[in-house]
Amino acid sequence: LNIEIINTGTELMLGGVLNTHHQWLAQQLYLAGYVVSRQTSVPDDGRAIQDAIRDALGRADLVLTTGGLGPTSDDLTRDLIAALLGKKLSYDAEVLKHIEHFYTDRKREIPVTTRVQAAVPEGARVLANAHGTAPGLAMEVDPNPFRPGAGASLLVLLPGPRRELKPMFREQVLPLIQMRFPLEQPFAARILRTTGLGESAIEERISPRLRLLVEQGLELGYCAQVGQVDLRLVARGDRAGTLVSEGECILRDELGPAIFGEDEATLEAIVVQRLTALNQTLALAESCTGGLIAHRITNVPGASRVLLAGLVTYSNEAKQTLLGVQTDTLAQHGAVSEAVAREMAVGALVRSGSDIALAVTGIAGPGGGSPTKPVGTVFIGLATHQTTEVIRQFNPVDRETFKFATSQQALNLLRRSAGL
Amino acid sequence: LNIEIINTGTELMLGGVLNTHHQWLAQQLYLAGYVVSRQTSVPDDGRAIQDAIRDALGRADLVLTTGGLGPTSDDLTRDLIAALLGKKLSYDAEVLKHIEHFYTDRKREIPVTTRVQAAVPEGARVLANAHGTAPGLAMEVDPNPFRPGAGASLLVLLPGPRRELKPMFREQVLPLIQMRFPLEQPFAARILRTTGLGESAIEERISPRLRLLVEQGLELGYCAQVGQVDLRLVARGDRAGTLVSEGECILRDELGPAIFGEDEATLEAIVVQRLTALNQTLALAESCTGGLIAHRITNVPGASRVLLAGLVTYSNEAKQTLLGVQTDTLAQHGAVSEAVAREMAVGALVRSGSDIALAVTGIAGPGGGSPTKPVGTVFIGLATHQTTEVIRQFNPVDRETFKFATSQQALNLLRRSAGL
Repeated sequence: LNIEIINTGTELMLGGVLNTHHQWLAQQLYLAGYVVSRQTSVPDDGRAIQDAIRDALGRADLVLTTGGLGPTSDDLTRDLIAALLGKKLSYDAEVLKHIEHFYTDRKREIPVTTRVQAAVPEGARVLANAHGTAPGLAMEVDPNPFRPGAGASLLVLLPGPRRELKPMFREQVLPLIQMRFPLEQPFAARILRTTGLGESAIEERISPRLRLLVEQGLELGYCAQVGQVDLRLVARGDRAGTLVSEGECILRDELGPAIFGEDEATLEAIVVQRLTALNQTLALAESCTGGLIAHRITNVPGASRVLLAGLVTYSNEAKQTLLGVQTDTLAQHGAVSEAVAREMAVGALVRSGSDIALAVTGIAGPGGGSPTKPVGTVFIGLATHQTTEVIRQFNPVDRETFKFATSQQALNLLRRSAGL
Repeated sequence: LNIEIINTGTELMLGGVLNTHHQWLAQQLYLAGYVVSRQTSVPDDGRAIQDAIRDALGRADLVLTTGGLGPTSDDLTRDLIAALLGKKLSYDAEVLKHIEHFYTDRKREIPVTTRVQAAVPEGARVLANAHGTAPGLAMEVDPNPFRPGAGASLLVLLPGPRRELKPMFREQVLPLIQMRFPLEQPFAARILRTTGLGESAIEERISPRLRLLVEQGLELGYCAQVGQVDLRLVARGDRAGTLVSEGECILRDELGPAIFGEDEATLEAIVVQRLTALNQTLALAESCTGGLIAHRITNVPGASRVLLAGLVTYSNEAKQTLLGVQTDTLAQHGAVSEAVAREMAVGALVRSGSDIALAVTGIAGPGGGSPTKPVGTVFIGLATHQTTEVIRQFNPVDRETFKFATSQQALNLLRRSAGL
């Protein structure tokens, strides 16, 4: 099964925006057992879009496009598809009504141009848009003139705005794909997310034990990111479910607590979830991570039940006045030291009244290193009312990577040490 | 001039990673006067890569590929290109020496497989890799068998790791492109970054005054993001420089302080730059942005000279104990109020001893709204030793967008109000 994604948008060609649509769609498809074979992006230019769609229809069974369905003169996809496939466009009464309601509900005037969004090519199925005015469209290209003899292809047009595209894909397009292209064999997939181990260390541990399952058809993939390695287990066929769950068993046995979550889990969401379940509150004291840990924690809905306070204490003075770090400790050990990390954690715990406190102090660079504490050195402290603990890490990477890698290590210490 | 980019990598097809390479390359090319006409991504699969390169060579004068040059069995690009173009591969002595030094400098053993990175197709030019072992390659496809009669095409292979790709492109590939494809006419481009105004408000203000320049060939592009609209001015021909600078003049005149920077500037970098120049220190008190403002500020190298402390005070207790917000004020006005924003800012100023303090309190949602203060309501306070100021904003969007939009408004208030 050949699947292609076409992302339209001049901004994509000028480097103005990142192509987040493709990543999201590819992942959703993958978790449902489908693999994208090619992705193309082209500018909002009639010729370029038509060429790209014609090329994709010449190769693929399923073509998904994003963007170009709005009401402006840049929005060309609907018209181009109709022209390319020789289909007439006609106004769809339901869609027109939806557009009218969309504006009247919001007490806004209906712009003249917006009606074009109700134009539907002959034979196309309308995909309702609950979050905007432009509907998606799905149509069978049958016969497919660009791929003679290969049968029909399914062409699906999705709107560009993320909050319109995502629910439309999840609720309408994926079920349509699953009906139109039922998987030839049972499919099972699992992503296990790990932190704290490198890719090769993981490979060394798991590959001997997975060999038998791999010979039987289990696929194993690695996706190494900053401070995180995701492991993908995939299998097809009658034994798909068994192969994946046996693989998962082995991974959990070998990697144990390095695995922090599954599928779409994030480390911060896991931490918030577990602290909430345990009814524990948290305080943060961040130096070199500069607020990133607080930012990640507060990205999780419900974080306010867990996080009492975060303190970004970049200067020595702030460490002293806000956290009660001792002048002597700073003078004797330096701001980047085990002793200071410990006092920061205890200070955050006591001053916020939380159950747990996490503290980070390190040298992000580019400046500030020394022979005994080179750029990349970091101390992470954890305090509860019973114990304190400090670990030393070394992340000699650029500033932004350093901040993220350190935040992973800190969240992971929190997850593992506080009995989570 | 047709330019295509091909990004190889199975992870791109499975949605494991975002395609940041394409965005970066497209923007670098654009600022140098070149526009990418198509971008393709394909998995690490021999057939798929060969097809994509053949297709691109059939259309383009310049083809750039990323990835697939490393030493593992997944790294296929070099071999495939040689096969596709019928070129022999032979070891390059310089590259071999570079690889050896790379490992011995790091006191690591040289893996056996790594030698393949020194294999160079006949006639290809080696692009030295200062940050890794795999060199880039540039070759003239002459004659180009996939585009008969159209002359030679230039094919450039770049390594996948970001810190290898970026300097190689900037230092070696862009100059090569500029020599091989000199711009037919003078080119000028400028990006002006704005915040605080919507795209249509900007368009209304500037388009009447720009009309004349646009008729003379000035191109104007909008890139609307969360809390930011970037304006692109581009012109070609003998008057390119004049058109762009006259356009910039009009934009600055009409939009004035809404413009915060040029080209690759970020709002946080501008704020840190100006505070540093004015020798002013900053403290932050964040509720609903949860540390994002501190995170953005500390992403800027040198932020430690400016930021004394950031306080993330999610709970009422933290607002009271860490910032000195009055119990009465919280009871009377609620945590999300002008009065609390003001007390938070003043508290951060006094307790950190900074020259300026910025405070944010609002309702990110999804829960917590009320009829008079619906989800999305936010108060941003700014305090100096002379004055205080509070603005009210309304950002009724999803949680992460809310946080970013609010952080833009807060940084912008800081930029504009504190005499920056």
